[in-house]
Amino acid sequence: MLTPYTAGEQLKDKRYIKLNTNENPYPPSPRLKDLFGAFDESVLKFYPAPDAGVLREQIALCEGVGKENVFCGNGSDEVLFLSFAAFFDGTRPVCFADITYTFYEVYAKFFGVTANVVPLNGDFTVNLSEMAERDCAGYFIANPNAPTGVGIPLNEMERFIASVPEKIVIADEAYMDFYGESCVPLTKKYENLLVVKTFSKSYSLAGIRCGYAVGNAALVRGLFNMKDCMNSYPVDAVCEAVCVQALLDREYHEKTVALVVSERERLRRELLALGFTVPESKANFLFAGRAPVSAREIYLRLKEEGVLVRFWDKPLISDFCRITVGTREETDVLLKKLKKILT
Amino acid sequence: MLTPYTAGEQLKDKRYIKLNTNENPYPPSPRLKDLFGAFDESVLKFYPAPDAGVLREQIALCEGVGKENVFCGNGSDEVLFLSFAAFFDGTRPVCFADITYTFYEVYAKFFGVTANVVPLNGDFTVNLSEMAERDCAGYFIANPNAPTGVGIPLNEMERFIASVPEKIVIADEAYMDFYGESCVPLTKKYENLLVVKTFSKSYSLAGIRCGYAVGNAALVRGLFNMKDCMNSYPVDAVCEAVCVQALLDREYHEKTVALVVSERERLRRELLALGFTVPESKANFLFAGRAPVSAREIYLRLKEEGVLVRFWDKPLISDFCRITVGTREETDVLLKKLKKILT
Repeated sequence: MLTPYTAGEQLKDKRYIKLNTNENPYPPSPRLKDLFGAFDESVLKFYPAPDAGVLREQIALCEGVGKENVFCGNGSDEVLFLSFAAFFDGTRPVCFADITYTFYEVYAKFFGVTANVVPLNGDFTVNLSEMAERDCAGYFIANPNAPTGVGIPLNEMERFIASVPEKIVIADEAYMDFYGESCVPLTKKYENLLVVKTFSKSYSLAGIRCGYAVGNAALVRGLFNMKDCMNSYPVDAVCEAVCVQALLDREYHEKTVALVVSERERLRRELLALGFTVPESKANFLFAGRAPVSAREIYLRLKEEGVLVRFWDKPLISDFCRITVGTREETDVLLKKLKKILT
Repeated sequence: MLTPYTAGEQLKDKRYIKLNTNENPYPPSPRLKDLFGAFDESVLKFYPAPDAGVLREQIALCEGVGKENVFCGNGSDEVLFLSFAAFFDGTRPVCFADITYTFYEVYAKFFGVTANVVPLNGDFTVNLSEMAERDCAGYFIANPNAPTGVGIPLNEMERFIASVPEKIVIADEAYMDFYGESCVPLTKKYENLLVVKTFSKSYSLAGIRCGYAVGNAALVRGLFNMKDCMNSYPVDAVCEAVCVQALLDREYHEKTVALVVSERERLRRELLALGFTVPESKANFLFAGRAPVSAREIYLRLKEEGVLVRFWDKPLISDFCRITVGTREETDVLLKKLKKILT
């Protein structure tokens, strides 16, 4: 029996402050208003470009790589799924951390690939030296990691990638824009590295479903081959146009990323002051727990109060909540409610 | 080695009359202009509904079924892929016709499921009585069939479905709106029937990537379970809104379908008069061949002349071209070029 991934709650019964699915609190680039206003709906009668070529060219420009080094899909989840299909044939295990994005385990079960799971260190850092030793065909490493938010510095990632040349390293950088230590430049040097990114987080485009991978051209061809076994046109015409506009507005992207990062730091200081354990986060969320009130109770009482955060009733992480960084106003409301719960 | 699906050419080197990928010659509903003009881009910061609930409700209304009987995905290709994953575990073969949508064979290879392939009858009809005898876990039946355009009447489909109660029948009705013999009403009576449809053809929305399945609630739950092993949110927020508007404009849908059907009949008469063999088509394309000039030459010379049609250099079908039904003006140009080639 396959165990599907469980996404965060999307409740509609009342108006919540949604700090549970790591969405960006700011809207996407205002350029999209012009795009939609002028959109020629008649183009939708045609299939979109099967290779999402215009978008891939724009991503290549932004990432400083060639178009042949970029692959796009229906959300980074689909890109991760296709990476699994392309690079893990089931003869050797896949390796990832015990506390990380839960979709890796779901994919392993889907494809019947054994999971070689490595526990995080006590301080929530990823145990790369242990991972390097494990028998596997390759790795999925979320950097920054979810749900902890802990980041791996670029030099540590490079040392790791260089130490496992015969294994593929899939660096899932969904939250990387809030950190700034992307492995993308290493894709030119290491043929065993694939970096996966998304428009859902820093570009405020979770609603449009687009993710991409950057890697050497042979890996990218492997992804295209797998896509063409599944769905010829995963990136629709509107999605492609929207993401191109989002990339072109770099100033807005930088500005909103900076706002989220500064609010993250403020929220962390406040949570520490309230007695939470909060690992230093490099993402747009904080992993907060070990407080005088249990994580489950905090989650339930915040929900009653109209604030959604994420809680997992699972070993190792059931004493923590994952809290998405919202706007300044949302943080203020959250902190007020938390103080009430803790006193 | 997996063999990917090969989509029709999407050439950009000059302006072609595109009659090669079965797109609709008419634009989608004019209501979309208002939708895009008023679209609130700020909603895109949120994930779309993981169950595409609003769209599923509208589809349910149009199809006369319950919301729990509807599943939506990123194009009907993704829905077919998920159906394969959900209902074929590899212990028994999958059965389909030798001449049909080539993605079924691609999926069979992807999932390592043996294909039990049944030749079409000499008149291009699907040999359902032979299929019923074959050992398999279930069937993929394109109705109308591609690339032949030949349709299976509802009563024949019902007899077949009733005769194989322990096997799943996936009726791929991508082109059904041009025929009008949909099996959807049978989903209430037969638990082994799943009907797959698309917005790409009759709704002129190939660019938006949305398809759906209709079946009993247990089958639909199976598809949801498989989706959640792959990608939580395959239908993006814009896609959902666009398809809802397309469904609401039933008058426009009926009008453009009628235009395509009448043009199809005219084009068929003309092709027959030119000496082509053309099976009666119930889709938005015609399968035309066995003319005094070879299909390959017709394809190449039409391409030179700026008209794209589909040609496969494959056994059984290499003597035919598949020609999408265009507008009246496009048909006139096509016929003029064909006459030139044939004389």
